[in-house]
Amino acid sequence: MALDSVQTPEGESAEALGGSAVYFSLAARHFAPVRMVGVVGTDFPDAHRELLIRCGVDIAGLQAVPGRTFRWVGRFGKDFNRAQTLDTQLNVFEKFDPRLSPEQASCSVLFLANIDPDLQRRVLEQMAAPKLVVCDTMNFWIGLKRKSLEELLTRIDVLIVNEEEAQQLSGDSNNVRAGLFLTRRGPRVVVVKKGEHGVLCVAGGVVHPLPAFPMETVKDPTGAGDSFAGAFVGALAEGSLDLRDIGALKRALAYGAVVSSVNVSDFSTRALETLTRPVIEERLRGYRELVNVS
Amino acid sequence: MALDSVQTPEGESAEALGGSAVYFSLAARHFAPVRMVGVVGTDFPDAHRELLIRCGVDIAGLQAVPGRTFRWVGRFGKDFNRAQTLDTQLNVFEKFDPRLSPEQASCSVLFLANIDPDLQRRVLEQMAAPKLVVCDTMNFWIGLKRKSLEELLTRIDVLIVNEEEAQQLSGDSNNVRAGLFLTRRGPRVVVVKKGEHGVLCVAGGVVHPLPAFPMETVKDPTGAGDSFAGAFVGALAEGSLDLRDIGALKRALAYGAVVSSVNVSDFSTRALETLTRPVIEERLRGYRELVNVS
Repeated sequence: MALDSVQTPEGESAEALGGSAVYFSLAARHFAPVRMVGVVGTDFPDAHRELLIRCGVDIAGLQAVPGRTFRWVGRFGKDFNRAQTLDTQLNVFEKFDPRLSPEQASCSVLFLANIDPDLQRRVLEQMAAPKLVVCDTMNFWIGLKRKSLEELLTRIDVLIVNEEEAQQLSGDSNNVRAGLFLTRRGPRVVVVKKGEHGVLCVAGGVVHPLPAFPMETVKDPTGAGDSFAGAFVGALAEGSLDLRDIGALKRALAYGAVVSSVNVSDFSTRALETLTRPVIEERLRGYRELVNVS
Repeated sequence: MALDSVQTPEGESAEALGGSAVYFSLAARHFAPVRMVGVVGTDFPDAHRELLIRCGVDIAGLQAVPGRTFRWVGRFGKDFNRAQTLDTQLNVFEKFDPRLSPEQASCSVLFLANIDPDLQRRVLEQMAAPKLVVCDTMNFWIGLKRKSLEELLTRIDVLIVNEEEAQQLSGDSNNVRAGLFLTRRGPRVVVVKKGEHGVLCVAGGVVHPLPAFPMETVKDPTGAGDSFAGAFVGALAEGSLDLRDIGALKRALAYGAVVSSVNVSDFSTRALETLTRPVIEERLRGYRELVNVS
């Protein structure tokens, strides 16, 4: 849960709603019920809570504690694939120790957003019997907590990382080999995100490339990866949890490509807020038409 | 026509057969008869001529003139998407002024490899009635001969450029907008090549993304773009020359992805020399299976 201030060549936002859990939930809600767990400070605007509730996200797991909400200040230049972090204020996030209610712990699908891998493990250990565990991480944790992260990899089903993270984690600069390497470290499926160039998805020893939805205008790439993950994991939850079903897996990835392309078309969560399932389906049809080779 | 000396993290080659015309022809020959036009010096090995003939390429248009053959010395680091030029010796290429025989001038499809746009225009003007004209270029000519190149764009059907060239030519850092812009400058189809990330193909105002064939091992990316162009243009020549047939266009691009992935699996033209149509077809089926979303 974050308040983001972002500058891009297309404009800027100030203390806008953001954070992995928010982007993920706003994307996933179209496919399956979402129970969000996170922490905010006393300064977190009620309007944001109301928005999430209005969008059907269960925010019972949203703790409010004394202090200020996590803040991120970032900038995107002409290269929309890479954010430049100008400031990070952990604030209440620094002492976050997520506790799941019995309801939350009973979910069949778990997405562990990018936090300390020790915290990710503690959340996983609170789950009753998850059928699908998907995990994100970042360069910071790979550098600082590699051991914890590698241990966690043996306990998850799907790892989602960007290409720099895949390379850092595997020590291999070839994305294809890096992805294959990581599937031998635990997760049955590894998704390597490449921004405007789409993703590579490694499953069953095979590397599937899926392009991004081509966008003439990108206003704000913030949350592209998390909204991708939200639609992807949501679509898996709605459909098949069997990761051997490659057709379903690729359709879920295509939903990810579609929803994240909508997300980057406006600042903060604006485009996600008004998105509807029929628009997603129409765009998925368009994606298929663009991509499929007869 | 070149003798290339290339270093990559996977090894090196010295004075090996190379050049746009060679890579293009060795890829295109699987789909349609190819009449190659180019220039070499007296030092050009007979073995290379014999190879081209054995592969079915018509080399009647291969002039041999006193002097040394064009040479390129380059290096690829970990980033296989970008070559570093260490040395370029134009040699006999400097005074090359291609003259077409009546047979060559009667071809229905013309590929103008990356040379001075004024020479490209002069070749085009020698053609009797080409049905499809495809053109490549590079940063050097965009900087030095922009006017000639822009004039040429109004007389071609398909432009093939990499993303840096698309951006330089359009002044737009967004590949999607750059490609769309270029289709408004003449060519009905623009292909923007992105190395390991595949291509964007703009046709009829629509941007189609096609991923590259995922490769665990890339030994030598030299000629990736030219072998892509060869298979792509060859497949168009074999099938439909109607660029409004988007299905055929995408299948031709997929052939390009497949053949260029074979090319980069070994140094120089080695992998292309032994490639057969059944292997191409098998790999195309694999590509479809990897890429298509149901």
